[in-house]
Parts: sequence; structure tokens; C-alpha cells
Amino acid sequence: MTVRIAVAGASGYAGGELLRLLLGHPDVEIGALTAGGNAGAPLLAHQPHLLPLADRTLVETTAEHLAGHDVVFLALPHGHSAALAARLGEDTLVVDCGADHRLTDARSWERWYGGEHAGSWPYGLPELPGHRDALRTTRRVAVPGCYPTVSSLALAPAMGLVEPEVTVVAVSGTSGAGKAPKPNLLGSEVMGSLSAYGVGGAHRHTPEIAQNLSAVAGEPVGVSFTPVLAPLPRGILATCSATLKADAGDVRAAYEEAYADEPFVHLLPEGHWPTTGAVLGSNAVLLQVTVDHDLNRLVVVAAVDNLAKGTAGAAVQCMNLALGLPETTGLSTVGVAP
Amino acid sequence: MTVRIAVAGASGYAGGELLRLLLGHPDVEIGALTAGGNAGAPLLAHQPHLLPLADRTLVETTAEHLAGHDVVFLALPHGHSAALAARLGEDTLVVDCGADHRLTDARSWERWYGGEHAGSWPYGLPELPGHRDALRTTRRVAVPGCYPTVSSLALAPAMGLVEPEVTVVAVSGTSGAGKAPKPNLLGSEVMGSLSAYGVGGAHRHTPEIAQNLSAVAGEPVGVSFTPVLAPLPRGILATCSATLKADAGDVRAAYEEAYADEPFVHLLPEGHWPTTGAVLGSNAVLLQVTVDHDLNRLVVVAAVDNLAKGTAGAAVQCMNLALGLPETTGLSTVGVAP
Amino acid sequence: MTVRIAVAGASGYAGGELLRLLLGHPDVEIGALTAGGNAGAPLLAHQPHLLPLADRTLVETTAEHLAGHDVVFLALPHGHSAALAARLGEDTLVVDCGADHRLTDARSWERWYGGEHAGSWPYGLPELPGHRDALRTTRRVAVPGCYPTVSSLALAPAMGLVEPEVTVVAVSGTSGAGKAPKPNLLGSEVMGSLSAYGVGGAHRHTPEIAQNLSAVAGEPVGVSFTPVLAPLPRGILATCSATLKADAGDVRAAYEEAYADEPFVHLLPEGHWPTTGAVLGSNAVLLQVTVDHDLNRLVVVAAVDNLAKGTAGAAVQCMNLALGLPETTGLSTVGVAP
Amino acid sequence: MTVRIAVAGASGYAGGELLRLLLGHPDVEIGALTAGGNAGAPLLAHQPHLLPLADRTLVETTAEHLAGHDVVFLALPHGHSAALAARLGEDTLVVDCGADHRLTDARSWERWYGGEHAGSWPYGLPELPGHRDALRTTRRVAVPGCYPTVSSLALAPAMGLVEPEVTVVAVSGTSGAGKAPKPNLLGSEVMGSLSAYGVGGAHRHTPEIAQNLSAVAGEPVGVSFTPVLAPLPRGILATCSATLKADAGDVRAAYEEAYADEPFVHLLPEGHWPTTGAVLGSNAVLLQVTVDHDLNRLVVVAAVDNLAKGTAGAAVQCMNLALGLPETTGLSTVGVAP
Repeated sequence: MTVRIAVAGASGYAGGELLRLLLGHPDVEIGALTAGGNAGAPLLAHQPHLLPLADRTLVETTAEHLAGHDVVFLALPHGHSAALAARLGEDTLVVDCGADHRLTDARSWERWYGGEHAGSWPYGLPELPGHRDALRTTRRVAVPGCYPTVSSLALAPAMGLVEPEVTVVAVSGTSGAGKAPKPNLLGSEVMGSLSAYGVGGAHRHTPEIAQNLSAVAGEPVGVSFTPVLAPLPRGILATCSATLKADAGDVRAAYEEAYADEPFVHLLPEGHWPTTGAVLGSNAVLLQVTVDHDLNRLVVVAAVDNLAKGTAGAAVQCMNLALGLPETTGLSTVGVAP
Repeated sequence: MTVRIAVAGASGYAGGELLRLLLGHPDVEIGALTAGGNAGAPLLAHQPHLLPLADRTLVETTAEHLAGHDVVFLALPHGHSAALAARLGEDTLVVDCGADHRLTDARSWERWYGGEHAGSWPYGLPELPGHRDALRTTRRVAVPGCYPTVSSLALAPAMGLVEPEVTVVAVSGTSGAGKAPKPNLLGSEVMGSLSAYGVGGAHRHTPEIAQNLSAVAGEPVGVSFTPVLAPLPRGILATCSATLKADAGDVRAAYEEAYADEPFVHLLPEGHWPTTGAVLGSNAVLLQVTVDHDLNRLVVVAAVDNLAKGTAGAAVQCMNLALGLPETTGLSTVGVAP
Repeated sequence: MTVRIAVAGASGYAGGELLRLLLGHPDVEIGALTAGGNAGAPLLAHQPHLLPLADRTLVETTAEHLAGHDVVFLALPHGHSAALAARLGEDTLVVDCGADHRLTDARSWERWYGGEHAGSWPYGLPELPGHRDALRTTRRVAVPGCYPTVSSLALAPAMGLVEPEVTVVAVSGTSGAGKAPKPNLLGSEVMGSLSAYGVGGAHRHTPEIAQNLSAVAGEPVGVSFTPVLAPLPRGILATCSATLKADAGDVRAAYEEAYADEPFVHLLPEGHWPTTGAVLGSNAVLLQVTVDHDLNRLVVVAAVDNLAKGTAGAAVQCMNLALGLPETTGLSTVGVAP
Repeated sequence: MTVRIAVAGASGYAGGELLRLLLGHPDVEIGALTAGGNAGAPLLAHQPHLLPLADRTLVETTAEHLAGHDVVFLALPHGHSAALAARLGEDTLVVDCGADHRLTDARSWERWYGGEHAGSWPYGLPELPGHRDALRTTRRVAVPGCYPTVSSLALAPAMGLVEPEVTVVAVSGTSGAGKAPKPNLLGSEVMGSLSAYGVGGAHRHTPEIAQNLSAVAGEPVGVSFTPVLAPLPRGILATCSATLKADAGDVRAAYEEAYADEPFVHLLPEGHWPTTGAVLGSNAVLLQVTVDHDLNRLVVVAAVDNLAKGTAGAAVQCMNLALGLPETTGLSTVGVAP
């Protein structure tokens, strides 16, 4: 079986990573590559690392150009997915890397993004309890945000064992901020500097993390989330902590059990700590857990490639599930290091 | 008045930064420059940025070489300061950039560093309540650790307003780890990667932060501290949070009041966030505070140059105090950016 | 004597570096700070490292705002200097960090920059033979380009000793490209990557290097110049080479003699090689020379901070000369490292 | 067919990259992984990015451990290959990533490396005229150095069209210097700095480049080679130039013809310039050529991943040739960007 795929937003970072992964996927044929302002340009001008697609030209992001493919990946700014998806046919698998269909609560959507809620789609984090089965049968997938991916996987096994308020400080490379040129994202600004943003619960990924953890915990979970920008292109390292309940028991065992059969989530042996360098380009999430006994506080450190498992890798993983392919097809747990 | 100074450990990063600052200090004459294994080498081989000292040679770190100076800066591995200081004369101002005399509690010292406690010296963070006066009359100064400097200044004004358990995740450049070559500090390893270390309360700066905050709070303060290594040479960005007490009142006002007269601690205008790039080479600490109202949690972000205000700048500031010079002499709040 | 200065283009990188240096200059009072599109904004929004100027607001770049100062520094895109300078009065010292008045040959200007040549001003590289005296009496200074500064100083002493064709490959940090956000200057693009630009003699600094070297050589010197962009904010490392004439003699001696009395140009001892890290924020130029005996080819490596001695430091140095101040006032040969 | 391979030096950078590529090679089974001082450690401690090999332990580098494999890759310091290879059996394919068997001239070996020359093996750069066929039948391969790979491919098509003296300035990431911790390779030292080394024809890759180009040119070619260290882990960007002969003709056409059928060497369309970011992890070499008409000088810019096509990718490519597999098996021209 070969499926024909299209990528909307092919000139951006998520689009480029999707294509990088799909070029290595044995069951995929790459069809239309669309863009907004960059339509008409050769793909190579925007994705010089994708040599096998050197003869391709970007076309405009329209339903017409995206029609006629088995799978359509959307890597667009938020607010654009619903209308496009509505015109793509119900049997087309639409995998949305944007935020439009992640939040289940309409009021939450309105608070954090503004405008009307387009409704929620099955959430593309198969490793969270209850999600994988839904992904096997859907034709619509909402790929999680990069911070929610790493934070939710880092903390989900602890739900029920910790008090329902967690702290997450996640340090990220710059590609998560996208390719639109902004002064604060210039190399001269980010190299040699660290900065926090969206502090105090102001980042839009906060409600998404809370939604995930609350669903696992079965009670509302408060999330204190702070993202920090660091001078590297890719990678997120999340430090997550929460106070253990008195009867928490063996939390490490909870993590071992939760991820024993997961191909992409690896609890490292004791004494080893995650680094983002080890997951560059890989679909793996690396975890380590420990307990600060002075405070009876669980601390989990997790590393992910924000563009791979954090975005495009998850999208491919969900495509595999939805198409009935082996979940790991075209994905790797081998990073590019150093 | 010109004071003659010596630097022990002049080939390392703290030593180099001390010399960089002292070369711009109008009241200082630079005397002996000592080293351990690097003794005998030209200073330029280890500090190529200190051109005005290009004719200097490193001599061995001995009490004899350090004697005869008005001020001796020690930038040595821990465990070496007490014996040297004992041989330097009581009227010599000894400023120790190492950890030996920071902790006041002997049992805490033994737990975290091992070996016998050498006793505590006046703690070189004049901006913490109660410390400046002690520094004006001492001949012995314990310069704070870099993480405790930024964390303590970030949270001290909130003591009493928050529950006595704080979370600090501090992202740091690599120079804090020193100049001894270790595989994990190679450029190839740190560029493009993020890593956490000393997780779960295992870093030696944890008790120092707790000591500072507990003294301000007047009650024991629990500190969940995680350092993260990021790919830049200098700078620490600390994200600090704690749950506000019900009657906390206006926390921003508390910060404004605490630092209104401090020359080096700057609470930024609302809407501006600290970056480490803005304090490169400067003695400033930049702060911003906010409240996550969903959680009633205070979040403070603070930036410092770990080698400047985090180590060598603090040492010079304390020297100024102890010598009766204006506290800001030879120090600057101007960073080198970009 | 206190001179009152203004900076046009104060929100950019050259403007920021000028202000950083001028804040440390004992004879200067900082007056108007002007900008184009950023006029009206607080300076701190664009130069967060200049805390002593935290209360300043950017005003529009007009002759009216710039009038009434003893010295006006222009850090503007090319083409804007002549008209402004004409309205500033002949006794105002105008120091132009832009390109408008560097080239002496009108046809060369038209070829490389287009438009009408505004005429040439005394060239602000006092270390080149014949330039220092002219700078002592002028009220107009053309500050050299960053690449021409380092390349010309690297090769000038060899003129006459080498065949009149030189090769320069200069690796540069990103700040030389300015602060205007362009996709190829995003942190995500420049970190982890190297790129060449203006290859094949297409960079506008080529004729400026040739002008300098030809003047020293007394014959036309061909310059093969290639700039390479590397992932760091500041610094240029130039590798310069040329074939030695048969009777070249002791080239090292030529360099020693040329720079023996120069405060900012340092020929390193044999066996030491320049690094840009050693000159970060400093006004020094570091040189090393060697001969490839297999090819009878001179190779010179030179390091400079493109924003400091490469732009703003040179501007301050020229101001000092023109005002009759000691040439090194407010400038340093101490770098910020690591 | 599945071939069983061993890697000697599996804890280093070249060894890690070999394993990364071989894990994606469909015809390979990974056998013994050997090391020197790191023998006994889990592979994961040194190669945390190779999760599929997380259960492997490093064993000592001995002929016994390497015996019994179809292919043995040697990624060892120079001087160790010949003795090991002699004990591995003539039908074992030995692919040496070290320098021992690259130089054909014994006197040249003695001058540049010292000690006795171990003899030369077929040189693993199939894209150079005359080499591919020899690689199809050999059981011994000398993988080229990283700088010679990119420099030779950049200049080979111009041989005969240019005067026989070329200038190469190649900017490199730090991984080429290996994993042994040295002070000058610390992250704190390399980030934010540029440095040249081996200047003046002192780098051991100089004679290897000259050997390659002289063979193509049919006359001795002088090589002025300067490597520059830049702050990134991987990648080499080489700027190569030479004076064109009077009758050079269309040099671009020469490059187009030379590489028309090469799967890994890509001459970019006019107006596009190579970046190392585009070849991260890929086996591609990107080239662009231009002529500086003012000087009648050819300038070629080339980008390569020093660990991939520059070392381990070439090794796998040569293994494919020697085993009669399709040359591109397990190798990709897709980079990981940004």
C-alpha cells in the first residue's frame, strides 16, 4: 500500500520536518506541497536540506491543491484548519499540527486563543491513557503541542500519586517559535542569551497540559508552566515536579509500568539523565524520575525533539495508527549526535 | 589609595573574571597571580583576553606568594581556603570565591561537601537583609555561589508572603562548571543540547539557597532546586515560584521596596522580561515578578552573569565594602550585547 | 572637558555598542538618541543591556534632534549620512559608521553601492599609514567597515613583500548583518550552520579592502574576499594569505615594526593564535603571522570584535583623536571571556 | 544477505556516527562494539542517542573481539590500524576511518605523522576519478579525512582549468577534533569564539588534499590550507579558490559534468549557496562555483557533514561498494534542519 500525502505549510519548520520524515517512510508518496506567501517558490529555497525534493515547487494552500490525497498534513497558523478540513472529504485523513482542535472545552479555547472554537479532534498522543484506540479509527487528528507532549508524558504516570498541582519549567530551542522573522528570534539575540516568556500561566500550552493531566488524574490539576528560550535550534528539556501524596508508594515502578511497552517513551536507567542532544531528529522521549526526599517532591526530567516527536513525528505516528500501519513505521529512536 | 591585590586561581574562569574587573578598578594594583598545575605558564596562555597582563607569569599558589597584598582573592576548588587564609594575616582582606565558608551549619557542610567544616565567614550578598553591614568591617568574605545569588535575590522579598516551599529551575551557561576538561562539557556535547543535573535536591547550592531564604523568612524554607545546563558560556536564568499566602497583598510593591536603593538589582518595568544577554559582563541582576492567578502562585524570573555578579563581581563589590570604597567602584550595570 | 554626543540609529547594534562604550568614557555626556521606525519607544526595549540609560526614549532621526551636540555618531543605513551631516554645522564632529564616505573613487562607489557618490571623508583607521594625522584635525570621519578593518590591518605590513593579490576568507558572527529581521538570520537558521555569502568578489567590502591595501602598496592590489557566517553573535576571524616575493626578508619583523607602538593592534607571541573570544567587547586586534614554506606563502590570521574595534570602538577612537583626547580613552584591550 | 559488522572505537564520535548509520542499514547486523579506556561501560553511557543499542556493553578493542565479522570498521587514533587489520583475515572487509593508510607516499607519511608508513589502501572517495572501481574489489579501505573529502570534491573538477596552486579555508565544527577532553575544546571556550589552527600548511590533511588534487591534475598541486574552528558540533564549510588559466572555458559546465551522475555530490542551482545546516546527518556534499572576474579567480564553496560523508557515511558508502550493494544503501541526502 502506498498512500499519497500532501503537506500544507511545507515551507515552515513543521512542514520541513514532516517531509524529512515522510521521505524515509516506505509507504508514502509525497504529493502537493503548499504554502502561503512562499507559494511559487522552489521548495529548495526554503528547505535546502530536502535534496530529493529539489525539483518541487510550492503551490498555494487551497483545498483544491490538497484534494485527491489520502493524507493531508496541516502545518498552518491556528485558525486555518477547520475550514480547509471541511472541504477535504470525510475519508481523507487530516492530521493537524496546529492548535485548532486540541482543546475540548470551548470556553477554554475562547479564553486562550479567541474566536470561535472549531471543535476537538482525537488527540494525537497515543501514549496517554485512552488515546491510542481513538486514533486507530479517526480521519481527523489533532497533533499535540510540543510542550504538552513532553510535559504530559513526564507527569501522566504520577497522576494520583502527587498532589494535583504541578510545576513545569521547560527549556526550548528556537524552532518552536517558527520561521517568521521576529527581532527577538534573530541569531544575534538568542545566541548567548536565555529568556523566559509566557510566564505566570500566560502560555497557550498551559490549558492543554492541564487538560491532559486532569483527564488522567480524574480531577482538576493545576499547572504552573514556564517556557524558557535557549540558544539551540531544537529540543525541549522539561523539569517537572509535584509534591508526593503520603501514600505514593514506588513512583519509579509506576513509570516503568506505564511505559514498558511504549516504543518511543524511554525511562532511562537510574543514574542516566535525559539530554535533548540524544533525541535530535528522533521520535523518542527520554525520562528520568527521582524524589527529593527533603521535600517529599517528585522531580521528573524529560527530553524531546520539539519538531520530531513534539510535532511532525507525532503526526506520522498518528498517521500510521489511523492507516493501520505499524505505529513505528518511518520513525526512529536514534538521534543525531553530537 | 591604591590597594595591592593577589588572585589565587588566576588561570580559571573565576580568576580570569576577577582580573578583568580589577583591571578596570581605579584603586587597585594587580600583584601576584597564582595557579596550581598551570604555575610557570604565561598568564596569556590561559587568559588570552587580558592583554594588559600579557607579560605576567603564573606562580604557584602558596601563602608566601600571596603574602604582602592588601587583598587576596581565592578562586580555588573547595577545601583549600581555610588553611591558606590562616597564613595570610588577620588584617589581609581575604575574599573567597569558593564554597568553604558559605554554610553556617557544620552538619549541613558535612552532608553536602564532606570533611570538616572550616567555619563560616560573612556572606557576600550585601543585598540580602542584614549582610551589608557585616561586610563593611570584615577581613574575610565568603562569596556566594552563583545559583544562590540569583535565587536568593529573586525570592527574598517574597519571604513571608509565600508558603515556605519554593521551586527554582535555573538554566545556566557552561562556565559555572569551570575550566577542567570533562567529556560532558566539551563543546560538541553542550552545543545543541540541554541537560539537567543535580536533580532532586542533589546540587550543593540547595542548602545555601535554603539558608538564605530561611534567614529572611524567619522559618525553614524548603527549596526544590534543579539546575539545567544550556549551550552558552555565561549567564543564569532562574525561574522561581511559590504559592502565595492568602493575605500576601501587593507582591510587586514588596520587590520595589526591597530593591529601590540597590545599585545592582533591577526590577524591570512591567512587560519587560529578563534575559541573560542583557547582563553579560555586568554586575546587574534583572528581575521580573508576576502572579499566576489561576494557581495563586508567584513566579519570579531573574537573570545574572554567573561569573560577574554571580562570582567575581560580587567579590569586587564586597572588597569595596570592606575597604570603605564606594560599593559600585569598578563595577558596571552595562552588559555586552548582543 | 565634557563633550555632548548624540547617536543616530541608537536602536541598532552599532548604536548600542557606541552607547555601551560611551557610557564608560569619562569625557562624554550622552545627549539625543535617535531612531527611525523605533522612534518613540523606550531605549530599554531595544537595548536592555544599557541600564544606566533606562529612562531614555528614542526620538526621530532628524537634523533638529541631532543639532546642538559636539559630536554626532551616525549608525544608519548607507545613503543617509551626507544630507544629515550637511545640516549639522561644520564644527560639529560627525562620525559616520556607515559606508557613504569610505570609498574615494566615485566610480567605485557607483559600481558597488549605486547612486551618487557623496564624497569621501578621512578614513577612520589610524593604524594604517598616513591616516592618523588626518583624523586629528577633521570634523568628519568615515569609520571603516568591519571586514576592511581586520583585513587591512592583517595585510598592510606585508604590502611590498608579497605579490599584489591577496586572499581573505573572513568568518563572522551575525551581528554584522544588523538587527533587521531576515529569515536567514534567525537563530534557528544560523545556529548549527555555516554559510558563505557575497562570494566571488560580490561583497561591498571588497573595494574598500583593495583601496586600503593599494594605497599602502603603491600599486593596485587584487583582493579575493569571501565572508562566511558562523553561529556566534560577535567577532571576525580573518585568514589572509598572499605569495611572498622572492626577496621578502623577515616578514615577522615587518609586523613587529608596524605595530610596535599601536595600542590596539597586538602581534601575538609565536605559538599563540588569535581567537575572537579573546577580543569580545575589546578594541584590540590580535594578529599572528606565519609562512607556509612549501608554497612560499604568507598566512596571517587576525581577530577583531566587529562591533567594537570593527565599528563603534573605531568610532570612539577617532572621536578621541579629533577632539585631542588620548586616543585610548574609554577603550579597552580587555575582552569578556569566556 | 545480512553482513555482520563490528566497530572498533565505538565510544567516540566517528564510532557513534557509524552506528547511527548502520542502525538504518537494511543489510547489516551489528556485532561487537569495542573501545579502549571505555571498555566495560554500557554503550549508552557514551552514545545516549543510540537507544536501539541500549543493552550493549563496550568490550576491549582486540583482534579477538573483532574477529568473526564480515566487516570491521576501525575508528581509532592513527597508528593502530595496520596491526589490527593484519590479524583480521584477508577476506574480512576492513574500513579504516583513521589516517594510517591514506597517504601513498612513505616519506610524506613520515614527515606528517612520524613513525613507519603502514602502506596505503584504496582511498575511499569514489567520486574522485579512478577510485570507485578500486573500491569495488578491495577488502581494505582508507576512509578520507573530513577536510580532504570536501576540499578534493570542491576542486577536483577544476584541475587542469586552474593554475596548480589552490587556497582552502575550511571552517569546521568541533566534533572533528574528537571526544577526548581538551581545554580548548570546552563548550565555554568554543561557544562565542572562532580560532584558526594548523595554519601555514601545518595541518596533516594538507598532504592528503595535495595528493588527491595532484593525481587528478596530473601535476603537483600546491595547497594552502587553513582550518578554522567555529561554534557548532558538526559541519565543514570550505571556501576554495584558484586562479583560472587563460583558456579555462566554462568551469561550471566542468562541475556539472563531473557530478551529473553522482548520488551524493550536488552542484546547487545558480544563486543558491551551500550551508552546513542543510547536510547535517546527511551524506550529501553541496557545491556552488563562481568566478571572480576582477581577479579571474575560481571560487568554490562546499558544505559537508564531517562525521557523515566526511567520515562514517563515506565508510558505509565504501562498504556498500566493496560488498556489491547499491552504493547508496543506508545513506541519505536528507539533512536534519533546522
